[in-house]
Amino acid sequence: MPESVSVDALIARRKPGHSLEAPFYTSQSVFDLDMMAIFGRHWIYVAVEPEIPEPGDCVTVNIGRASVIILRDDDLQVRAFHNVCRHRGARLTPEGASTVGNLVCPYHQWTYGLDGRLLFAEHMGREFDTSCHGLKPVHVRSVGGLLFVCLAKEPPSDIDALAAAIEPYIAPHDLRHCKVAHSEDLIELGNWKLTMENNRECYHCVGNHPELTVPLFEYGFGFSPDSLDDNRRVHAERYDALLTESCQRWEGMGLPSREIDRLTDVTGFRTQRLPIDGSGESQTKDTRVASRKILGSLSERSLGGLSFWTQPNSWHHFMSDHIVTFSVLPLSPDRTLLRTRWLVHKDAVEGVDYDLKALTEVWNATNRQDGDLVAIAQAGAASPAYEPGPYSPHTEGLVEKFCAWYIDRLSAHQGVAAPVEVAA
Amino acid sequence: MPESVSVDALIARRKPGHSLEAPFYTSQSVFDLDMMAIFGRHWIYVAVEPEIPEPGDCVTVNIGRASVIILRDDDLQVRAFHNVCRHRGARLTPEGASTVGNLVCPYHQWTYGLDGRLLFAEHMGREFDTSCHGLKPVHVRSVGGLLFVCLAKEPPSDIDALAAAIEPYIAPHDLRHCKVAHSEDLIELGNWKLTMENNRECYHCVGNHPELTVPLFEYGFGFSPDSLDDNRRVHAERYDALLTESCQRWEGMGLPSREIDRLTDVTGFRTQRLPIDGSGESQTKDTRVASRKILGSLSERSLGGLSFWTQPNSWHHFMSDHIVTFSVLPLSPDRTLLRTRWLVHKDAVEGVDYDLKALTEVWNATNRQDGDLVAIAQAGAASPAYEPGPYSPHTEGLVEKFCAWYIDRLSAHQGVAAPVEVAA
Amino acid sequence: MPESVSVDALIARRKPGHSLEAPFYTSQSVFDLDMMAIFGRHWIYVAVEPEIPEPGDCVTVNIGRASVIILRDDDLQVRAFHNVCRHRGARLTPEGASTVGNLVCPYHQWTYGLDGRLLFAEHMGREFDTSCHGLKPVHVRSVGGLLFVCLAKEPPSDIDALAAAIEPYIAPHDLRHCKVAHSEDLIELGNWKLTMENNRECYHCVGNHPELTVPLFEYGFGFSPDSLDDNRRVHAERYDALLTESCQRWEGMGLPSREIDRLTDVTGFRTQRLPIDGSGESQTKDTRVASRKILGSLSERSLGGLSFWTQPNSWHHFMSDHIVTFSVLPLSPDRTLLRTRWLVHKDAVEGVDYDLKALTEVWNATNRQDGDLVAIAQAGAASPAYEPGPYSPHTEGLVEKFCAWYIDRLSAHQGVAAPVEVAA
Repeated sequence: MPESVSVDALIARRKPGHSLEAPFYTSQSVFDLDMMAIFGRHWIYVAVEPEIPEPGDCVTVNIGRASVIILRDDDLQVRAFHNVCRHRGARLTPEGASTVGNLVCPYHQWTYGLDGRLLFAEHMGREFDTSCHGLKPVHVRSVGGLLFVCLAKEPPSDIDALAAAIEPYIAPHDLRHCKVAHSEDLIELGNWKLTMENNRECYHCVGNHPELTVPLFEYGFGFSPDSLDDNRRVHAERYDALLTESCQRWEGMGLPSREIDRLTDVTGFRTQRLPIDGSGESQTKDTRVASRKILGSLSERSLGGLSFWTQPNSWHHFMSDHIVTFSVLPLSPDRTLLRTRWLVHKDAVEGVDYDLKALTEVWNATNRQDGDLVAIAQAGAASPAYEPGPYSPHTEGLVEKFCAWYIDRLSAHQGVAAPVEVAA
Repeated sequence: MPESVSVDALIARRKPGHSLEAPFYTSQSVFDLDMMAIFGRHWIYVAVEPEIPEPGDCVTVNIGRASVIILRDDDLQVRAFHNVCRHRGARLTPEGASTVGNLVCPYHQWTYGLDGRLLFAEHMGREFDTSCHGLKPVHVRSVGGLLFVCLAKEPPSDIDALAAAIEPYIAPHDLRHCKVAHSEDLIELGNWKLTMENNRECYHCVGNHPELTVPLFEYGFGFSPDSLDDNRRVHAERYDALLTESCQRWEGMGLPSREIDRLTDVTGFRTQRLPIDGSGESQTKDTRVASRKILGSLSERSLGGLSFWTQPNSWHHFMSDHIVTFSVLPLSPDRTLLRTRWLVHKDAVEGVDYDLKALTEVWNATNRQDGDLVAIAQAGAASPAYEPGPYSPHTEGLVEKFCAWYIDRLSAHQGVAAPVEVAA
Repeated sequence: MPESVSVDALIARRKPGHSLEAPFYTSQSVFDLDMMAIFGRHWIYVAVEPEIPEPGDCVTVNIGRASVIILRDDDLQVRAFHNVCRHRGARLTPEGASTVGNLVCPYHQWTYGLDGRLLFAEHMGREFDTSCHGLKPVHVRSVGGLLFVCLAKEPPSDIDALAAAIEPYIAPHDLRHCKVAHSEDLIELGNWKLTMENNRECYHCVGNHPELTVPLFEYGFGFSPDSLDDNRRVHAERYDALLTESCQRWEGMGLPSREIDRLTDVTGFRTQRLPIDGSGESQTKDTRVASRKILGSLSERSLGGLSFWTQPNSWHHFMSDHIVTFSVLPLSPDRTLLRTRWLVHKDAVEGVDYDLKALTEVWNATNRQDGDLVAIAQAGAASPAYEPGPYSPHTEGLVEKFCAWYIDRLSAHQGVAAPVEVAA
């Protein structure tokens, strides 16, 4: 009966270096807490600026039971509002993209400006004060064109530190002048934390991702030195030399590439530019660019992949020719939406400069494979025989960092002491 | 965490003139209470007599987890029973229409008469007393052919007052000599109270119901005098004159037409005969009768529409040529069944006297439009940003009356004091 | 509000001779208790040895949220393990049949031997102890080729008594040298106990099973002597004589056939060999064998049907030519999986020795009919008007024994006193 243990007790007794106890993956009450304490109080990655290039462009994103309209105002500022009419609560816009002059509620035509002010509400009488009935604002922040929202009244302030650190890395790829070439929603049959844990290690890659392991180096995400034979040791050493050499070259070109790891911040993140195998150009099946229009101020193709991971719900890969971004949105304790977007230069022409299949096939295949893994992990975690197992100290350090961050954030929310680390 | 507030607290702090707090629309425990206190203790409209014209005709209706068989006995009386075999509980009849000699349980053939008595149960032994194992009766009442049931042991007695008041209005349309020409079940993705609130105002009609607003006058359901320009003021005044003139004419013909509003009664209701636009005949796309056989003792076509609304779950429109009735049955906190039936003269022949599409298209379109509105209102009410908003004092007075009745009935059931009205 | 009554109170006040109170069929908390106290602590029938004839053959069965791998080890022993990787919990094998060399987790390739030992786990470092991370074993027991598992640490020991008693009955049919000719999964829309109760009586057969009542005698499962007219009394007496004569003949041939009833044991069971109508050979539409290859050491066709019923979840029919076995697995309070397998001699060839339709049509039809009955019983039990009804003392004695066993086992688990029997 794992549900009879208090969340506070579960937080307090979490065993570092091990997967979480079952209720963190299966319980409705933990899920409700996650939506409040994690998705209700942190910066959540939801969209990119190229989805709303012009005034009146909107993108509507559901975060649990909340729904947020992110739009571009006439002054070109990005704004965000709760998608709840102040009359009787109706949704103003459907999920996804729309373009509006004003925001008009479909129910009784209450009409709001792009700044959220209530402009018009018929039949409400003389005593009705429109100024008290504007849309409720949501905090929104563009980090180099990546749009983060925060549902809390007071969002974590260290988004400034994140932006200051990451913008020099991603600015050369000039996301704002890209376009979304393709978007794909995949519902994974597992808890959102299993989707995140899966993202934070490549221990599973060799056995599961035949497409992704063409551009990705097996040794790029950690390994146990004990388990290498002579042949594999040579490969590992070669990779190490390549990483050092590539990083020096890219930094010499003015492209920040060195690892930054601030995963324990409230707005935790990590970044690093990593070499790509083969031709070294892009995360594609032939390791070459998928789009001939090179992004932004970049001048060559072989720039590896700049990865950017954020807590609690995103990761992104920036290459010389395209960008892939991933947003994780919990649906229920055992269902999670993974939204993937592929961006290319805004002037790139499909069929001329890029082929959609070549652009998307590696990550589409990888996402589906990961979805299958998340589903078998969820089913297993729900088993009465499940108990937390040990993470590899060599390949799952970032999974542990995700779990530690999560437990720490829940703990801060609950006001209990953070769990004391004990030997695993 | 709205679920942590007690229902009593929610009842006590309800703010008149405003939509209800979110848990009234989303919480499972409020839904369970609604099924017990509202649908378990009030008169619920479920069917019409023309569905069971002959002895042995049954109609089975599910009300939440309850299932009720309404049938015509050999003495032509209408009776109703719980659809639960007294042996091992099996359903005797499936939902919908059936015709039987006796009620025979499909499981072990226990056989009940149309009066509910257990007539036969094989293998039960000599000591078994059939007289203790009859079907459990349900209160049923025909109001001019409209069938209401009440699941409570002691049903509200003011159904007599309702019948006495409404029967003179509906008798001339002679529902008992109609036939059901068409029936349609629509599942709306919202709480049943949102379906009812939607029915109790036409503020949303102009923006959403292009078909319905052909026969319906925009000004027939209230408006704010402040928001009329000169042109619209002329229209409103013309409507007002038409209403007065029509009412006098219909009453002069012996057709009661004046508004009765007893919406605060336990068995609350309201009625009024209202003019129809265009030719003034019927709620159709061309405002003309859909059926050439005029109903009952009526002698002309232009009789407008007699509307009859009941708490908690029905409304009905009686015209010279056809009747449309609506029954609302909750399925879960966020799913509601709307059952619509169209009745014409029992001798009217499809394809000769009436065309089914012309008969049904206005309300079928309107129901679907309303279902969409209910769904966006439900989604919004579930949002953490939702808060009760103000009803229009000019166009949503009947919505407020529905909510006030609902809160009052819950309050009576809970035994707490009714909330004191405070300025909105 | 039946959910507000404690399970202990429901157990204590259970009225013998009557169907159970509604929460036993509808409540999630009773379902959770059932999965723990009944399916978590008793011997559960799940599969047959012919599904795993060779080393490395596996069959994976889900029991609630648990998943069990049953396999044949290299030493030909049958073993069972929890289907939960000791790393991060992933399912090692999908539901159903598979064949493996070792058990390799799809996630990170942790590799277990067929004896459950962890053989290999890459990247785990020098301090990692594989010997502490073997698969968790599950108790498994073959009773004449029927495979039972028990999820408890200490399984009920009276499986030995069951095996000693039943093996002489079923050994001549030589299940181990059969093959599964067909398997069918049916999801019934009712609580698992309604599926079991339905199995424990044939009071419903005459009215519902036109196919099954060809081979089955109406009088084989009890009747009320009061309700027989002269004609039916003759039939009943003839059946009685046939039963006595057949039993003597079969026992004379060395085939144990007399009834054993140990339904009140912890591992409760019952068996009896019963005559078949018509040609007397098999449970088929023409009462003749469906397969020409007679099983095991049997030498003639007319051996009736040896039935074997176990608490809480199985029944089996052994005939001269084929075996049908049924496993009941709860899915939710109102959904139950019925898994049926038909076995024939392993050398029988489809289309030559047996026809699949003729083999399966009686029980496929019967299962579907029973599924419909279970669904209407479930719907009825959920009704607020439902109350426990009386079982027939003549035809539902085994239903009562099932319910009494169930209540007794829950009671033992809860540590409350068993309910005192009061006059029904």
